[in-house]
Amino acid sequence: MYKAPVEDIAFTLRHVAGLSDAIDKGLLGDLGEDLVDAILNEAGRFATEEVAPLADIGDRQGARLVDGEVKTPDGWAKLYQDWIAGGWNGLTGPEEYGGQGLPNMLNVAALEMWNSGATAFALCPTLTMGAVEALSAHGSPELRHKYLAKLISGQWTATMNLTEPHAGSDVGALKSRAERRDDGTYRLFGQKIFITWGEHDATDNIIHLVLARLPDAPAGTRGISLFLVPKFLVNDDGSLGRRNDVFCHSLEHKMGIHGSPTCTMIYGDGRFGGEKGAVGWLVGEENKGLNCMFTMMNNARLTVGMQGVAIAEAATQKAIAYAMERTQGRAPGWSGSGMSPIIEHPDVARMLLTMKALTQGSRAISYACAHAIDMSHRASGDKQHWQERAALLTPIAKSFSTDAGVDVASLGIQVHGGMGFIEETGAARFLRDARIAPIYEGTNGIQAIDLVSRKLPLSNGDHVKGFLAELRDIADQVRSSNLDGFGETAARLDSAIADLEQATGWLLKVQADGKVADALSGATPYQRLFGLALTGSYLAKGGLARVSDGADERRIALCRFAAENLLSETAALKDRVINGADSLAAARIALA
Amino acid sequence: MYKAPVEDIAFTLRHVAGLSDAIDKGLLGDLGEDLVDAILNEAGRFATEEVAPLADIGDRQGARLVDGEVKTPDGWAKLYQDWIAGGWNGLTGPEEYGGQGLPNMLNVAALEMWNSGATAFALCPTLTMGAVEALSAHGSPELRHKYLAKLISGQWTATMNLTEPHAGSDVGALKSRAERRDDGTYRLFGQKIFITWGEHDATDNIIHLVLARLPDAPAGTRGISLFLVPKFLVNDDGSLGRRNDVFCHSLEHKMGIHGSPTCTMIYGDGRFGGEKGAVGWLVGEENKGLNCMFTMMNNARLTVGMQGVAIAEAATQKAIAYAMERTQGRAPGWSGSGMSPIIEHPDVARMLLTMKALTQGSRAISYACAHAIDMSHRASGDKQHWQERAALLTPIAKSFSTDAGVDVASLGIQVHGGMGFIEETGAARFLRDARIAPIYEGTNGIQAIDLVSRKLPLSNGDHVKGFLAELRDIADQVRSSNLDGFGETAARLDSAIADLEQATGWLLKVQADGKVADALSGATPYQRLFGLALTGSYLAKGGLARVSDGADERRIALCRFAAENLLSETAALKDRVINGADSLAAARIALA
Repeated sequence: MYKAPVEDIAFTLRHVAGLSDAIDKGLLGDLGEDLVDAILNEAGRFATEEVAPLADIGDRQGARLVDGEVKTPDGWAKLYQDWIAGGWNGLTGPEEYGGQGLPNMLNVAALEMWNSGATAFALCPTLTMGAVEALSAHGSPELRHKYLAKLISGQWTATMNLTEPHAGSDVGALKSRAERRDDGTYRLFGQKIFITWGEHDATDNIIHLVLARLPDAPAGTRGISLFLVPKFLVNDDGSLGRRNDVFCHSLEHKMGIHGSPTCTMIYGDGRFGGEKGAVGWLVGEENKGLNCMFTMMNNARLTVGMQGVAIAEAATQKAIAYAMERTQGRAPGWSGSGMSPIIEHPDVARMLLTMKALTQGSRAISYACAHAIDMSHRASGDKQHWQERAALLTPIAKSFSTDAGVDVASLGIQVHGGMGFIEETGAARFLRDARIAPIYEGTNGIQAIDLVSRKLPLSNGDHVKGFLAELRDIADQVRSSNLDGFGETAARLDSAIADLEQATGWLLKVQADGKVADALSGATPYQRLFGLALTGSYLAKGGLARVSDGADERRIALCRFAAENLLSETAALKDRVINGADSLAAARIALA
Repeated sequence: MYKAPVEDIAFTLRHVAGLSDAIDKGLLGDLGEDLVDAILNEAGRFATEEVAPLADIGDRQGARLVDGEVKTPDGWAKLYQDWIAGGWNGLTGPEEYGGQGLPNMLNVAALEMWNSGATAFALCPTLTMGAVEALSAHGSPELRHKYLAKLISGQWTATMNLTEPHAGSDVGALKSRAERRDDGTYRLFGQKIFITWGEHDATDNIIHLVLARLPDAPAGTRGISLFLVPKFLVNDDGSLGRRNDVFCHSLEHKMGIHGSPTCTMIYGDGRFGGEKGAVGWLVGEENKGLNCMFTMMNNARLTVGMQGVAIAEAATQKAIAYAMERTQGRAPGWSGSGMSPIIEHPDVARMLLTMKALTQGSRAISYACAHAIDMSHRASGDKQHWQERAALLTPIAKSFSTDAGVDVASLGIQVHGGMGFIEETGAARFLRDARIAPIYEGTNGIQAIDLVSRKLPLSNGDHVKGFLAELRDIADQVRSSNLDGFGETAARLDSAIADLEQATGWLLKVQADGKVADALSGATPYQRLFGLALTGSYLAKGGLARVSDGADERRIALCRFAAENLLSETAALKDRVINGADSLAAARIALA
């Protein structure tokens, strides 16, 4: 059973991602180390004792559509109420509306724990938090006044309605329509699919944020507006009015995250009588809906990345526990009597260490991204630097972590042997739950396009170059530390960073030359190359922190394993970026 | 929907794996190219039209235990009867008992198609075929006479009973016991788990092959005997007698292959009255049961490899079809109107080409392994050479193909985007079905131990060295072909083979020096390195075959893609083999 790794999480926040530094510099207001500990410990307790025990029933029972109503798994509605009673929904929300105004880093760390406990459950507040952000930034004073406090407390939840059958990655292709009414409201019509927690029984209202087109809107992405559409209309005194013209038509049967209702939502069908059309209010300006949505999507990408980290952590814990318990055969050098625990077999140890290194690497990348977001809001003077850092790290945090989630969960099954394939063991669920994360909130392929074509060119390529210099500095510190435990880490980091540097330079150059297809052919290998180089660098940074002897030694040893066993892949990835495009283009005939 | 790739399969058999060569040399009796075509075409038709359409209901409905009886999914019992009526069960069985005595290569090719159609279904005859082999080789004349004809026709099916809760990879730990009776029979007692198709309603008898210990047996693997235990006793005239004391206690809930009943079998519980103990007959000699089982396990490893090839093929077909149909965004260089098919996006093309290359590589390796098995039975003079080749290729065919099955199925989900996560699409099932294959029939980690510690040292390392020379020869032929389409293939092959050569030499040396842990630490990366080098070499061999212009061009282009995009991984793998062990050993403290 999952136990929240509060110590690892706190260490990574403080010494790798920059939390202690920001606190020391006074950039996080009156947030002190004690409060950080208190929050992480209590989140860890809640995730371990309350959330994780309900994951299994959520998977087995799933969300069910009964007479048009969605039933969440047994115990989940109460779990949600307990969870919001703990104040967890409003950790980062604006204090003006009852939020705690804490840095994003803490929320991301807590999200990791909720997601390790039960990803399908954690999805619900994740969507609400995104909506809070979009409304805070773009909602009118009236909308903010009416909805924000209840969304921040979690009394109501929220959804994001983008996807339609023919508009997935290409949001611009959507067809849902909105009509203006004289009173300033709108009426919405259309079908949205893949709406996470679109309908459920855990709260008495649900606030939908919906992308749709006005009749006179320009084609494509510039003709999309964002609307707020509540399930029940809200009276001026905050009480609930009549049911709005929106309902859940069906639930998807998914490979995983069964406890999360994935809804097809119908707007404006007239099912509840009266004038057809779901009543909606404009968020932001007409035809500028995509801008508003991007506010929440960027953060949502990081929170999806956390799902990868979270599942990797839970899968790793489970696999290590099993490998220490299960005995089979005799490992080389085993001097005990009888069979050895399988963790003693080098191949099993290799799998577990790979799992652990990928988990910690993706955690560090994701927390560093959250730190950059925090700093972009709070640091004075270098706002642009931190905005660019957050922008650069977001696609890597999303893609590398979610790929790690899948790879680690799959290795976890392998460590369990035949038991891993049996659902009751629980290892298989991790892979089933993890498999969606590289897809939604922008597929990892789209993250790679974003990274290569929009993020590398920031500040004319100077931002990424500055970042590479920071990584080189970490390698230099490893070298000058003279700590034996690091083994060949410094040299391995040097070549990984050199590979990243060459690939970066090449991508910037071919794009400057207008060779877009060449750049995009290597985007995915480049994204992984970046993630691996960061994994090595951040594990090294953690190893250098030196806070307590035993833990230091373990961190340094894991860093060395990553450097000497995982980083060797960077040369192959660089090669694919720089030399892979021609053969890829030529081989298209093999797909005909 | 899956369509059997008969042309690709026939090409790989003939021009890559050596079938035409063997036919030309007269090593396969009167088997002619026409008969090969007829068999493959008819198998392809049956797999496409009869098996594949029932895969989905098998997954959704699964095998069910009702009142102690196992119900197979709707339509599967009839499908099985139609399938045996086609003579498919006895393709390679001895002619003496009604088999067709055809080479293993053809059966393996047909197995690929059954498994692409529905892996859970194909598992049933796969087990029977293994039992036929074990009985043919080790059964007494009486047992052969009584059982072989009906197992070869498929009128009865068979099972393999090895695993017990505490004896999985380590078979020697098993505890099931057998007692001698005066009439020469035995009585068996114990519990076996994970018994594939252990109980079902598709035939009127099931023949269990069961490993158990005699009371006076030595401890460990040298005290295990093999017994034949029929579900219903068989009278001398072949009619069925009373129910034997064995039953299916429960079915596992598995991540995939739902249509295949995975049974816990109880022997000697007395449930059907009378004296307790399941009546069994010894196969082979007492305490030599593991030898007998190995006969069938080696072949079973190749047939599990075919599951990987088969799922990879089916997943690739589905993903390509979807990517040609689905439109989103505008790919660079897209000149059509509106959105482009996603296959035009370089990142999607990269995924599809990777899937295709891994599928064809693992197919070639597996067919080459089957060829070696055939030659070891039929070639005159170089029997040992072919035995060693089969022994060397078996762990690679099993592990590389089943890893490819998982990786390709996972990429297939990614290509489908959100739809890939929805069960009705069918892409998710491939990953769920594929995930067991790297585990059962010896985990891929155990295959790697076998490869490194038992197969490399064959003929003092000379066998593997000779094989490497054959691969070098292929690279030379590519170079001297002067075909532009191959791009950098020759040079890329050279370095992949050099990496393999160095890693091989290193492994032989450290084992000679007694450094077992060092060798085993690198066993899994080595196994993948071997598989990748073979993939490149065999795709090149296919590209060199030159049989028809268009197809030749496509094969050469795919080979080049594999050489220039996938083979770069071999340097990293070699590095892990040669330089990875120390940091792996040092990092064990991080798992504490």
